[in-house]
Amino acid sequence: MKVIEKIREAELENKTLFSFEFFPPKTEDGVDNLFDKMDRMVQHNPSFCDITWGAGGTTADLTLDIANKMQNMICVETMMHLTCTNMPVEKIDHALDAIKGNGIQNVLALRGDPPHGQDKFVQTEGGFACALDLVKHIRAKYGDYFGITVAGYPEAHPEVIESNGVATLESYHNDLAYLKRKVDAGADVIVTQLFYDTDVFLKFVNDCRQMGITCPIVPGIMPINNYKGFLRMTGFCKTRVPPEIMAALDSIKDDEEAVRKYGIYLGTEMCKKILAHGIKTLHLYTLNMDKSALAILQNLGLIDEAKISRTLPWRRPTNIFRLKEDVRPIFWANRPKSYLSRTIGWDQFPHGRWGDSGNPSYGALTDYQFMRPRSRDKKLKEEWAVSLKSVEDIHDKFMQLCLGKLKSNPWSELDGLQPETKIINEQLGSINLKGFLTINSQPSVNAAKSDSPSVGWGGPGGYVYQKAYVEFFCSQGQLNVLIEKAKTFPSLTYIAVNKEGKSISNVGPNDVNAVTWGVFPAKEILQPTIVDPASFIVWKDEAFEIWTKGWARLYPEDDSSRTLLEQVQSSYYLVSLVDNDYIKGDLFAVFNEV
Amino acid sequence: MKVIEKIREAELENKTLFSFEFFPPKTEDGVDNLFDKMDRMVQHNPSFCDITWGAGGTTADLTLDIANKMQNMICVETMMHLTCTNMPVEKIDHALDAIKGNGIQNVLALRGDPPHGQDKFVQTEGGFACALDLVKHIRAKYGDYFGITVAGYPEAHPEVIESNGVATLESYHNDLAYLKRKVDAGADVIVTQLFYDTDVFLKFVNDCRQMGITCPIVPGIMPINNYKGFLRMTGFCKTRVPPEIMAALDSIKDDEEAVRKYGIYLGTEMCKKILAHGIKTLHLYTLNMDKSALAILQNLGLIDEAKISRTLPWRRPTNIFRLKEDVRPIFWANRPKSYLSRTIGWDQFPHGRWGDSGNPSYGALTDYQFMRPRSRDKKLKEEWAVSLKSVEDIHDKFMQLCLGKLKSNPWSELDGLQPETKIINEQLGSINLKGFLTINSQPSVNAAKSDSPSVGWGGPGGYVYQKAYVEFFCSQGQLNVLIEKAKTFPSLTYIAVNKEGKSISNVGPNDVNAVTWGVFPAKEILQPTIVDPASFIVWKDEAFEIWTKGWARLYPEDDSSRTLLEQVQSSYYLVSLVDNDYIKGDLFAVFNEV
Repeated sequence: MKVIEKIREAELENKTLFSFEFFPPKTEDGVDNLFDKMDRMVQHNPSFCDITWGAGGTTADLTLDIANKMQNMICVETMMHLTCTNMPVEKIDHALDAIKGNGIQNVLALRGDPPHGQDKFVQTEGGFACALDLVKHIRAKYGDYFGITVAGYPEAHPEVIESNGVATLESYHNDLAYLKRKVDAGADVIVTQLFYDTDVFLKFVNDCRQMGITCPIVPGIMPINNYKGFLRMTGFCKTRVPPEIMAALDSIKDDEEAVRKYGIYLGTEMCKKILAHGIKTLHLYTLNMDKSALAILQNLGLIDEAKISRTLPWRRPTNIFRLKEDVRPIFWANRPKSYLSRTIGWDQFPHGRWGDSGNPSYGALTDYQFMRPRSRDKKLKEEWAVSLKSVEDIHDKFMQLCLGKLKSNPWSELDGLQPETKIINEQLGSINLKGFLTINSQPSVNAAKSDSPSVGWGGPGGYVYQKAYVEFFCSQGQLNVLIEKAKTFPSLTYIAVNKEGKSISNVGPNDVNAVTWGVFPAKEILQPTIVDPASFIVWKDEAFEIWTKGWARLYPEDDSSRTLLEQVQSSYYLVSLVDNDYIKGDLFAVFNEV
Repeated sequence: MKVIEKIREAELENKTLFSFEFFPPKTEDGVDNLFDKMDRMVQHNPSFCDITWGAGGTTADLTLDIANKMQNMICVETMMHLTCTNMPVEKIDHALDAIKGNGIQNVLALRGDPPHGQDKFVQTEGGFACALDLVKHIRAKYGDYFGITVAGYPEAHPEVIESNGVATLESYHNDLAYLKRKVDAGADVIVTQLFYDTDVFLKFVNDCRQMGITCPIVPGIMPINNYKGFLRMTGFCKTRVPPEIMAALDSIKDDEEAVRKYGIYLGTEMCKKILAHGIKTLHLYTLNMDKSALAILQNLGLIDEAKISRTLPWRRPTNIFRLKEDVRPIFWANRPKSYLSRTIGWDQFPHGRWGDSGNPSYGALTDYQFMRPRSRDKKLKEEWAVSLKSVEDIHDKFMQLCLGKLKSNPWSELDGLQPETKIINEQLGSINLKGFLTINSQPSVNAAKSDSPSVGWGGPGGYVYQKAYVEFFCSQGQLNVLIEKAKTFPSLTYIAVNKEGKSISNVGPNDVNAVTWGVFPAKEILQPTIVDPASFIVWKDEAFEIWTKGWARLYPEDDSSRTLLEQVQSSYYLVSLVDNDYIKGDLFAVFNEV
């Protein structure tokens, strides 16, 4: 969705929006960390996030890759920066085609800094001379597909700022006139350069309006994190710093913590003043750090770090091809990125997938689904590559996992337990000790308020429901006992399957079971999570592979623990068990009998 | 759906099926009565219903019309009989094309009786000589589209029955061989001629199996209703009547009621014996009478006359084009036939209608939607064509209606109140007296068992829900007061519109509100009834028209009551009001404030 559409929608609802800007890190670990950070920050529902185009296009491929993952794995509306520096038109088009193909709809069009080692911007052969030409090109070649944002300079472009720190009135006006030409050429949003004098920004907005620029003007706020960094940045951008800010910083410049706190205070005050003037969109330059940006938003009451509100139980995609997605199998609940990667080729959501309950053609299982960021892989090794003497050692490991004693989990992309798991973790612990090795679960929920912190989703005013669910590996012997006992619990339905695909079930092959749903005022019933036999058979390949590709691989090749894990993999069943009576049922009662 | 598919499905679930056979009545009133009777009988979920092809094709057009209405208005799976008598192939194809176009998939292929005034069957020029040729033709021309049933004669065809009342063994075997040829040519079900000696039927089934006939053989049971009719029928069909039955009837032949009771007793015993032999499908020749057939099924425990079980809140269509229909606007709840006629051209259910919430293109409003069977029209005149002095007289009429004091209702195709209305009729009565003239309503339901007699649907094992709903006409003044008061009831959403289309609402134009839904084991959430603004605007034309075409027309042209009704029609609003809090809300509380 275009950022301008988001802003217009929010205006109608009188809502305040915020967004974050990131840059491509220099190392692989840096990239891993950035995604971790972004993933947490995106929980707070920023309206969009930016990723910059490295100086002179040096990080082009990385930026494209990060933008793709932001949009399609992190699932945040992504705005990619694009500059003219060293970019002939073929490269520009390559980048635009790539993001278009990936379902990204937002570009921030910039001229860019001078090429490395030069003082002045030089037009590349076959490239563009300025952002205006880039905007024109995007509109000419891609029509209305992209939302185009351009940069606004509240103090005029740094290149025209004189040695006394300010631009002449003429330069300032030329700059505004140029901005208007960019908007007239098709840009639909302006994001400003950073500033520390809020009055300068407010005057700039006013001047833009006088010039006839009517599009949204979003202030770019860079929280002060560090004294030296602040001096470097404001020097580079020739940003005016009001003397009282300089004075305040001078008095604490050697106390990093105090500088950061002041940065949060100042950012909060600047935003308050801006919001008070009726500007309802804030853009935060995060410098890839989360704390200050989130603290400012928390101070403004725009987020609540203690209470993440979810639109659905899983994060809604932003890719324009899957905006209508409204239902997912529960199996991938702890592996959303794997699910996204395996369904990336789907062209219809959700119908044509679930409506006919035909065979959903999931993408093949590749190593991608087992890759992990290095930091998380290290934690896995520490916690899971321990010597295993018998299956009881494995049972014990799973019990520790569901009691929250482990930070990593080969079957999960997420950190730690989901909040709702804590409701049932004692019961889970006890069935794991019996050899029912749980990898996914949810408690039953009967008409909880939709803004409940543990199980709520969809915003206030509704009621949400869940059928109790547990998914586990167990031996054939344990499975037989369980199935026998389950006959006296008529509200239980199960599907069990082993690695080879041998399957036992008490439901039909087309019985799709809604296990999470919600009822909201003036809405159709939402039913975001289901258990269906067809997807389960696809999922089981992934779930079984994790025994080896997720766990056994952590050991040396000839370790006997590895052999044990391979035996479990080849002999156990994966079982999906639902208690359909979400009002009076007790999913765990059947295990008491085993 | 083909009858054979229904039988195969039922076999898998070990369920017993039953069906009813009707014939085309001779008068218009007779046809009206037949549909009334059929409508009530179909509530008990017969697997299918037959309509016969009048002797010599004399009722061809009527049979086609009745078959169409059975399938598409009564919504029962329909099997139309088709005979060769007086039917050249063009007429045969015309009939088959007609029912195919109407979504009917079942034909019973017969040779038919000799033409009127003749003793022997004569092949029409350009027609077929026998049922076998007809079966071959249907398969050749229509492929697998139709399910084809043929007649089986447990005592051989009457034409080969000798004067001693039985066929020779040779004739009997020839008859069986011919039956096998009909099946081999493509018939997939056999329904038998009537019989009263169950052993004869069981032997026949056995003989068929010996011959290699493997398709289902459905016994045709004709309950004895009347002594003379029984003699005529068994004489005509040359049916063997066991002496003990003859003796039993002889002793009571002058007591009609005793004969009927005996008929029910005998039918029940015959069916019990047949079912005990593992035959799970019963076909009842009703002679267009409901009582004996239903009494037999009640005795067998196959239906419960005190407890009608509904698959959905509205009767599921059987037309193959709308099998996937799973959601309807609540507005037509009391006018299902009008809804069916207005959506008959739809090619997609339900998506493309509700999913995108685009404008559903309902058929135009025609006089059809206001037509009524004559008997009902008479009742309407008696109850509604009373002198009206002021709007208070109208308020009073509506109050009587929802207290169940009237048997007819211009706004409803149904007789009397829906069972659930009785839960709230006192409250409805009181708001009607205040001038909120209700034409549709449902109480809130929070997790009632799905087999609850008043509000249940979908069979046992699930939970059903409803948001409280009321739809009414009221004056602009009353509407203004209500809307003001509704501000303090945040769970209420409403749409109000007058005849001209002026509309006031507190929901968005695309806010589709599920007002009835159900949760079942191993199923997706069902959401059969919704309130949506787009359909409401279509419905309001029909609802407003009823003031004149349904009510005012009952008066002489110059009656002042007529003028009063026209004034109400042109000045009142139609209001759809939902209480979204189905757990704690009280829809009627807001009216207490008015």
